[in-house]
Formats: sequence, structure tokens, C-alpha cells
Amino acid sequence: MLIEGRQHRSIWYEAETDQVCIIDQTRLPHDFAIRTLRTLEDACEAIGAMRVRGAPLIGVTAAFGVYLALRENPASLDTAIRQLRATRPTAVNLRWALDRAARELSERTRSDAAGKALEFALALAEEDAACCEAIGEHGGEVLRRLWQEQCGRDRPLQVLTHCNAGALATVDWGTALAAIYKVADAGVPLHVWVDETRPRNQGGALTCWELRQAGIDHSLIVDSAAGHVMARGLVDVCVTGSDRVSASGDVCNKIGTYQVALAARDNNLPFYAALPVSTIDFGWPSAAEPIPIEEREPEEVSLTSGIETGGSETQVRQYPGETVVRNYAFDVTPARLVNGIITEHGVFEAERESLAALAGAQLSPSGP
Amino acid sequence: MLIEGRQHRSIWYEAETDQVCIIDQTRLPHDFAIRTLRTLEDACEAIGAMRVRGAPLIGVTAAFGVYLALRENPASLDTAIRQLRATRPTAVNLRWALDRAARELSERTRSDAAGKALEFALALAEEDAACCEAIGEHGGEVLRRLWQEQCGRDRPLQVLTHCNAGALATVDWGTALAAIYKVADAGVPLHVWVDETRPRNQGGALTCWELRQAGIDHSLIVDSAAGHVMARGLVDVCVTGSDRVSASGDVCNKIGTYQVALAARDNNLPFYAALPVSTIDFGWPSAAEPIPIEEREPEEVSLTSGIETGGSETQVRQYPGETVVRNYAFDVTPARLVNGIITEHGVFEAERESLAALAGAQLSPSGP
Repeated sequence: MLIEGRQHRSIWYEAETDQVCIIDQTRLPHDFAIRTLRTLEDACEAIGAMRVRGAPLIGVTAAFGVYLALRENPASLDTAIRQLRATRPTAVNLRWALDRAARELSERTRSDAAGKALEFALALAEEDAACCEAIGEHGGEVLRRLWQEQCGRDRPLQVLTHCNAGALATVDWGTALAAIYKVADAGVPLHVWVDETRPRNQGGALTCWELRQAGIDHSLIVDSAAGHVMARGLVDVCVTGSDRVSASGDVCNKIGTYQVALAARDNNLPFYAALPVSTIDFGWPSAAEPIPIEEREPEEVSLTSGIETGGSETQVRQYPGETVVRNYAFDVTPARLVNGIITEHGVFEAERESLAALAGAQLSPSGP
Repeated sequence: MLIEGRQHRSIWYEAETDQVCIIDQTRLPHDFAIRTLRTLEDACEAIGAMRVRGAPLIGVTAAFGVYLALRENPASLDTAIRQLRATRPTAVNLRWALDRAARELSERTRSDAAGKALEFALALAEEDAACCEAIGEHGGEVLRRLWQEQCGRDRPLQVLTHCNAGALATVDWGTALAAIYKVADAGVPLHVWVDETRPRNQGGALTCWELRQAGIDHSLIVDSAAGHVMARGLVDVCVTGSDRVSASGDVCNKIGTYQVALAARDNNLPFYAALPVSTIDFGWPSAAEPIPIEEREPEEVSLTSGIETGGSETQVRQYPGETVVRNYAFDVTPARLVNGIITEHGVFEAERESLAALAGAQLSPSGP
């Protein structure tokens, strides 16, 4: 991704200094700060404190964490994996990356363990970046065609997105934003409507920051305004990421995605979800079988962080402690509202037969 | 409304001390503070600084402002009206209340002007309270019937509301919340889902405060979660207020209402708007003719106020100043998504013929 005019990733390895670096996302959008991870503890802290977030990025950070542990003590694989796993107990990609690291490294002699761990982390990062770029190619083509058909090529394509499905959630490119970056690279003029995405404001804080860095025209709206801008004819297409897709094409994603899809349908606009094939859960048959939806702490809603007049970061309480808050983190958009599932292997219909073709891809080496 | 166990209004006159009192809404939900208005300037400041808000309450405050001006100087009617009108230039009820005050008071001799202005303000306040109570009676009956039919009387009725259409927006009772207060008074067990209502958070700050004071069970959710709780079967009915209703029953209301109505329809739940007949604009034929939608300053989205650790009120910046924000204040819910319009004269279908019966009521003395 482009930051202050230079290409960056969310996490990278500097060979000269043997250092792992991340963008400290807790400082965004107010500060662009790079943080160096020198030890296993640094990696655990970065994941736990959400300096890195987004499923793919957490997985890659954990893989680098294994390297940092083995560099210090080649016999520490098991404890490193245990410590890393405990940082975000519900993150599926974290487990998956650590299980894979354990498999790859278990048969190594201790003398080459650190080197192999680094190799694995670097390969995982490359794999994720390539996968996201492929999602961007396919999604960008969807957007380019819409621009041709809907805008007659003579006005900017208006895209609405929710949350942050951008480069900051992955190693590079992102998923929904990958499509936006690719179609912008292809010369298509764009305007992106960014939903704020309460309560953590990933849209207002991260997506706006990414798009500003990339020089892509955009406007921030409160989540409640998505339907209004669609009704006013100011949107051509909606694209979001996803945290889990059912075998039938139902899209579990950040809370509010369902309302975006409803408004899109009411206004005859296409709604797409962009995601790596690894996000499809073939063990979840359909939305008719409810999945557990994470409820997070009420303080995410009642407390808000920002910069005070003096310039320092501070937190204010918006609602008294006795306010009962239910903080649902995700919702499920039924497949009937989804016009397509954009993956690294192409665009698929949100229905069982179409997605079944991808079950094999999850096992292939090019899958993430 | 019940506050700390005692009946209050949002504005009232204390005869013993010849004082006008208001609840200072800028201090809610953290502080319940009563403020005395002693002069015209006090009244103008209270309206301008949004210590009172909500169309009906602004109108009544202005009428009391005229009294305070004439008490000091019986010849100041014209300048008082001019000063009050300038406080919130776009508030329709403010103009309407002041025009009415001008008509009522223009033929008075200067010696009885102040007394007549007080009489008028008190009558306007009574009129508003009675109108809202009648809305509550009709709306409460709608909710009571739903409880009987949907809940079989054996579980709480689950109502979702958006923004603050409560006693704090009027002199007493409110509109959507009036229905909730009345059905609660009738002994129906309730749980209310309160949308936060970004960016000014009237749901999280004011509606939750009102419901807590009234002892009505409720939970705060972010605006994006309304569809999710409906999809999970946790809502029986949605009720909101309205700022303007078309002759065909389209409901202009706080941004996000349209998405609430869409989610209600997708989940087969009834959606009602509750409002005084004066809110129906028979000069606005239908949503097919777009009305201007107020766009407010970006700072409402980018800056957030709250209480810091030390206990004092402070403001933090969530998004950098260069973030482009479009802050639409209202949206329009098409009549096809509205199951009924609840007024002080009963419940009407959201369509032209049904509402036409109310055109006469706008002119009748019992209309607000």
C-alpha cells in the first residue's frame, strides 16, 4: 500500500537489521508510527493490544513471533506457540497459522529452526499478499465492468464500503479495498463512501486513512447514512469483506453489513463480498443454522478515544456506566442479498453449487 | 416524565418565583441539571446552545421567551420575536410558535402584554403535553394489541426505537416514547432496543436516560445492530418519531430511520411513526419529489464529547481535520415500508386517502 508516497506493507522483515516491523494501527489515523518487534513478547503484545488486527495479518504476525522466539532460544517452539495462541483466543487465522508453523517446524533440528521459521513467516506473508492481490484483480474487473455499464465511463464509479477490509487488515492490498485499488490503478475514476463502522470506527479511522494515502477520493458517513446515499442515487455498488461465509453464500461480517446489503437491494444496487477462499466455512451449511455471534465489552460503545485539544490521546465516557449495552460484533447477510463472492480464484455466485467448486481450492498449495 | 421518582416536564413555569425552568439537555446523560430562564437572552441562549431541542419544545421555549421579554419591556414584542427566530433559523416549529404569539399579542395594550404572553406560553405547553399524551394513548393501544397477538401476553414486548422521540423532545410524554410509556403504564412488560443514533447520539444519551428514569428495561445498541437484533428474533415492533411526513405517508426522520424500516420489513415486523398531525406536510406530495435534506457540520461526526477520567466534560477528535465527512441529518422512509402513522387523532395508514382525513385536524383548535 502507498503511505506518504512510498510502498509499505502492514508487516515486513528488514534483512539488514534482522528486524520485524509493523505499522502500529492503534496510533492511526492520527499518527503513522512504525514499531519494531524484537522478541516473542513484542509480537504477543502487538497482537493482544491490537497494534495489528485483521485475521490474515494476525496470522502472519504470529508466524514472525515464532521466528523471534526461536532466534533467541531454538528450543522454545512449544512455549512460543502457546503464548502466541493466548493473545487472541478466538482468532481462527491465528490458530491456523500456528498449527501450520508447528507442522513445518516440528521436524527441524534445533540448529536450523530459526532460519526455517523465518522462511515460513516470509512465505506466509508473500502468500497472503499474492492472494489479496488476486482478489483485487477479480474484484477490480467487476468494478471496471460496472463503471462501463452504469456510468458510461463518463463519471466516477461510486462504491460504498463498510469497516476496514483494506491493506491494514492483511499484509498488503486487503480484500474489498484491493478491488478498489486495482480498479483505480486501471484508471477508473472513483468515489468511495466509507461507513464509520461503530463502535470501533475502523471505517472512519483506518479505511479513510488508507484511501487518503492512496489518493482515492472518498467521504466518511455515519453507518446510518448508507441507505440515504443509496436512495439519493449516489452509489453504484457496495463491496465489503467477510469474516466467514457459509457453504450457501451467507456472509458473516462486521455488524451493519446486513443493513448495507438490505439498502443495496432496495435500491437495485449490487452487493459483493470479497474474501480469500479460506474464509468459506464449508462446515456451516447456511444462515438457517445460526452461528455464535461474538458479543464484545460494553465499553467499546460507551468509551471513545481521540485527541484532545492539547494534542494527546485521551478517552472519554459517552454513556454512564449503568447504561446496559449489547455490543454485537458481527451480523449475517443472507445469500439472497449477495450478488457475488469475489475470491482469489474468481467471482462466484452466492449459492451452494457455485461455491462447492472452491472446496478443493482450500486444500491447494496456492490457497492461503 | 418521571425523573428521580418525581414528575417533571422539559420546561415549566414556577408561579411563586415567576421563573421559567428547563432541564439542561446538554448536561445529559451525565448530569440532571435544572436551569432557570430569567430573560429573553436566557431563552435565546437555551435554544441556540441546544439546552432544549426537539421541535415542539423549541416552540414552547420561544413562547416563554416572549413572556420574559415583555415582562421586562412591554414594548419589545417585535425585537423579541426577531431575536428568538434567529436562534435556530431552520426550525419550523419555532417560526410557527412565534407567528402565533405575534397574532395573539399584537392587539393587546402594552399594560396586559406580558400577562397575555404568559397565558399563551402556558396554553401552548398544555396543548403540546395533551397532544403527546393522546399520541401515547393511540400508540400504546397499538403496542398492547401487538403484545397480545405476538407475545401471547407471556413475555415482554420488544420494541426498537431510533433517536429520541421522547419527553425531552417535547414538553412531556414525547411521541414514539409516549406510546412506550402508556403501554408500560397499562402493565405490559417491555424491553426497548435503543439505537445509539450517531452522530449526536440522542438514543444513547437521551432515550436511555429517559427510559432509565421511567424504570423501563432497555438496551443500547449501535445503529448498525438494529437489523441483527431483528434477524435474531429479538424485536416485535419498531416505532420512531418523525420530522416531516408527506401527504402520501413517507416519513422524513433522523438519519438511519430508513435502514430500520428496511430491516423491519425484511423480518416481517411492523414499523410505525408517531407524530402530531402538525408534522404532516400536505404540501409535500410524496417521496418521489425529494425534499432538501439538511447537511450538518462535519465536526458533529469527527469530534465526540464525554466525561474524562477526572470527571470533567471534554471533547476529543476521532478523525483528523482533513477527513471529508458528509453529515446528512435526515432520511426519508418510503410509505411502502410504514405500517401506520400514529397521531393524536388515532392511527392512520401511510397513504394519501387515509391521511387526507387529517388535513382538517391541522386547522382545528385541538391540533397542536
